[in-house]
Amino acid sequence: MKPYREMSREELLSLKADLDKQFEDAKGKGLKLDMSRGKPTPAQLDMAMGLMDTLNSDSEMNTENGMDTRNYGLMDGIPEAKRLMADMMGGVPAENVIVYGNASLSIMYDTVSRSVTHGVLGSTPWCKLDQVKFLCPAPGYDRHFAITKLFGIEMITIPMTPEGPDMDLVEKYVFEDPAVKGIWCVPKYSNPQGISYSDETVRRFAALKPAAEDFRIYWDNAYVVHHLYDDKQDEILEILSECEKAGNPDMVYEFASTSKVSFSGAGISAFAASKANVEEAKRFMTIQTIGHDKVNQLRHVRYFRNLDGIKAHMRKHADIIRPKFEAVLAVLDKELGGLGIGEWTRPRGGYFISFDAMEGCAKAIVAKCKEAGVVLTGAGATFPYGIDPKDSNIRIAPTYPTADEMAEASDLFVLCVKLVSVEKLLEA
Amino acid sequence: MKPYREMSREELLSLKADLDKQFEDAKGKGLKLDMSRGKPTPAQLDMAMGLMDTLNSDSEMNTENGMDTRNYGLMDGIPEAKRLMADMMGGVPAENVIVYGNASLSIMYDTVSRSVTHGVLGSTPWCKLDQVKFLCPAPGYDRHFAITKLFGIEMITIPMTPEGPDMDLVEKYVFEDPAVKGIWCVPKYSNPQGISYSDETVRRFAALKPAAEDFRIYWDNAYVVHHLYDDKQDEILEILSECEKAGNPDMVYEFASTSKVSFSGAGISAFAASKANVEEAKRFMTIQTIGHDKVNQLRHVRYFRNLDGIKAHMRKHADIIRPKFEAVLAVLDKELGGLGIGEWTRPRGGYFISFDAMEGCAKAIVAKCKEAGVVLTGAGATFPYGIDPKDSNIRIAPTYPTADEMAEASDLFVLCVKLVSVEKLLEA
Repeated sequence: MKPYREMSREELLSLKADLDKQFEDAKGKGLKLDMSRGKPTPAQLDMAMGLMDTLNSDSEMNTENGMDTRNYGLMDGIPEAKRLMADMMGGVPAENVIVYGNASLSIMYDTVSRSVTHGVLGSTPWCKLDQVKFLCPAPGYDRHFAITKLFGIEMITIPMTPEGPDMDLVEKYVFEDPAVKGIWCVPKYSNPQGISYSDETVRRFAALKPAAEDFRIYWDNAYVVHHLYDDKQDEILEILSECEKAGNPDMVYEFASTSKVSFSGAGISAFAASKANVEEAKRFMTIQTIGHDKVNQLRHVRYFRNLDGIKAHMRKHADIIRPKFEAVLAVLDKELGGLGIGEWTRPRGGYFISFDAMEGCAKAIVAKCKEAGVVLTGAGATFPYGIDPKDSNIRIAPTYPTADEMAEASDLFVLCVKLVSVEKLLEA
Repeated sequence: MKPYREMSREELLSLKADLDKQFEDAKGKGLKLDMSRGKPTPAQLDMAMGLMDTLNSDSEMNTENGMDTRNYGLMDGIPEAKRLMADMMGGVPAENVIVYGNASLSIMYDTVSRSVTHGVLGSTPWCKLDQVKFLCPAPGYDRHFAITKLFGIEMITIPMTPEGPDMDLVEKYVFEDPAVKGIWCVPKYSNPQGISYSDETVRRFAALKPAAEDFRIYWDNAYVVHHLYDDKQDEILEILSECEKAGNPDMVYEFASTSKVSFSGAGISAFAASKANVEEAKRFMTIQTIGHDKVNQLRHVRYFRNLDGIKAHMRKHADIIRPKFEAVLAVLDKELGGLGIGEWTRPRGGYFISFDAMEGCAKAIVAKCKEAGVVLTGAGATFPYGIDPKDSNIRIAPTYPTADEMAEASDLFVLCVKLVSVEKLLEA
């Protein structure tokens, strides 16, 4: 089939008639599928059920340094869990890590909230400033943007490139504007594009010369061990040591969790940063909490043992979700290849495929899919304020449904892409 | 022995010589005891080890409404855990409860923090106000005071009476001063005095007519099921329904946890409030977190089953810690009874005994004890800003050491009380 843009009006009209009919047929099928949720499928969770056996009523409940995980104390996490999370985060020193509860999102929220009320290492609290801005590489993670929006922080969209955020723009903003206090990054297998930052990008991040002393990189390493393939794996530079080498040790906060390793509802999470940043976080923790669930930390360490254990576990995850990604990609390639009405990513890891429709088509495609029973992430969700300036990006989450369901949902998706694209071209 | 105040200078000098000698002997023993920590003893934690057996790799992991506890979702807690915590909090409706992670302190911090940055049900954020004040019944819980201090909230000490806080004063402040936004309460077996609020006190709380629309009672029901005796138990009125009856449904936030029921390091906690307050908290939670550890919630429900299960468990705790309280009280009664140099509480529950020395003696007593190897909570810790205006109150935490250790530590404590009191009287 030839590219849609090269078709005559008659060809488009005839195509539309055909697609309309196909769509009516599809609607008749009464599909009920969901490609919106970046969540593990039960088979992945089943694989971690051994976690439930690692501790029982006869278990030794002390940490390696003899502290009772069941009691108060060790507010910043048990040493062996610090080490496990440190290794998972690409080999940061364990003393630079604090282990938290089950949600790394809470750490991020809390870090922003603390900066708003109390500043950063002695800087003016953001609530006392007229203007605070965050850079938001987009498409990105909607929950990051929701946090900054909640605190009234102005969000500036930074386009993504295949190497990561547009660093020329990042450097310009960070260097010139003292109101720019942070940037949201998912550096590895980014949400939703699956892009991993190149070494040059990471080094340029580490070498930033911020106008604001309290500028921080929010490095959400959510998919750090979430490869889809054994033989094709992305690795990124370790940001803490890069920042230190570049003379900016305090410029980065790193976040990670086992939400998509063990259980999304009952994992452990971690924060890594320079000594000064970690000490500041701990100073607040002494007032904020009596510490996080140390028994669950122990459970995770006893189960995974070390980074190799996590890697082996994640290979089993990959075996489950890779076919789902491939099912989607096969349909996209076969049905949309060469038509010039969409582009999509082929991630080597993470939880999403990112699809860029023709400009002005994303909302309509999502609505069409919904009409026929397939739920997609809301168009625009991947941009600050929920507004995609090109109305083009759609996030596809293949992990939760089965591969067959994903293929079926993808069939409908490509049909909707074609139909909306034809309509758009006919309007022009 | 006669009251110290009735002794002549010569008698006091002779007594001091004798006590000095006893103290030197005591120092020589090389004691290393700690009466400062309100934490469960390992035997209490051992009793909950069955928790570790309630879930294993064959367990059904769904909630009663069919949700997978291992995955994302049910941000506000699993229904059966809401019910359990609702029952524990004296029978509040389960729909008024949100179940959180292991630390109720985090909920309190978070609630204050949110009020500072975003206000309360639409009121002006506290960070935009010139002055925010909290009433602090004292002696009270140092970690409450630490939270309000951190946010620059002015703390006003409210004296405690045997019925609870001095309600005349509470009513006056709350009615007259719109800057008064909250009050910290531990209504049952208060920390450190073990006082339970009388029905009249609770009703007067519920009937408050605050000058500030965003005034809230922070009702930390930390010791709600923590009785020491089977036959002598305090019960307090349920505050949510009292507030509702009085036409103030939104005026209270209640907090509780299983930190001193199951594991201090791995329990579950809860927040209870009116529908409007709960909805506001949930609205922020959608941005703040992906929810709390639901597997641990399930574990707790499967283990305790219901309030009766919790009560039976707490009777076993009481059997362990009651002898420790009694060991302390026996020494206090025997050694200090009738001397007029101290008063102490005889709590029916909770975690502490509160001791009031002669004015100006608490710091010196704590220092003396430390000199001979017995650690007490720092004098002043039970008051806002760490300053006890009378330098009189000392918190004794009998739960962690053994009963023998408590008796030994108490022997030293009463010796130090005597010595410091004599010195004080000699100064006069």
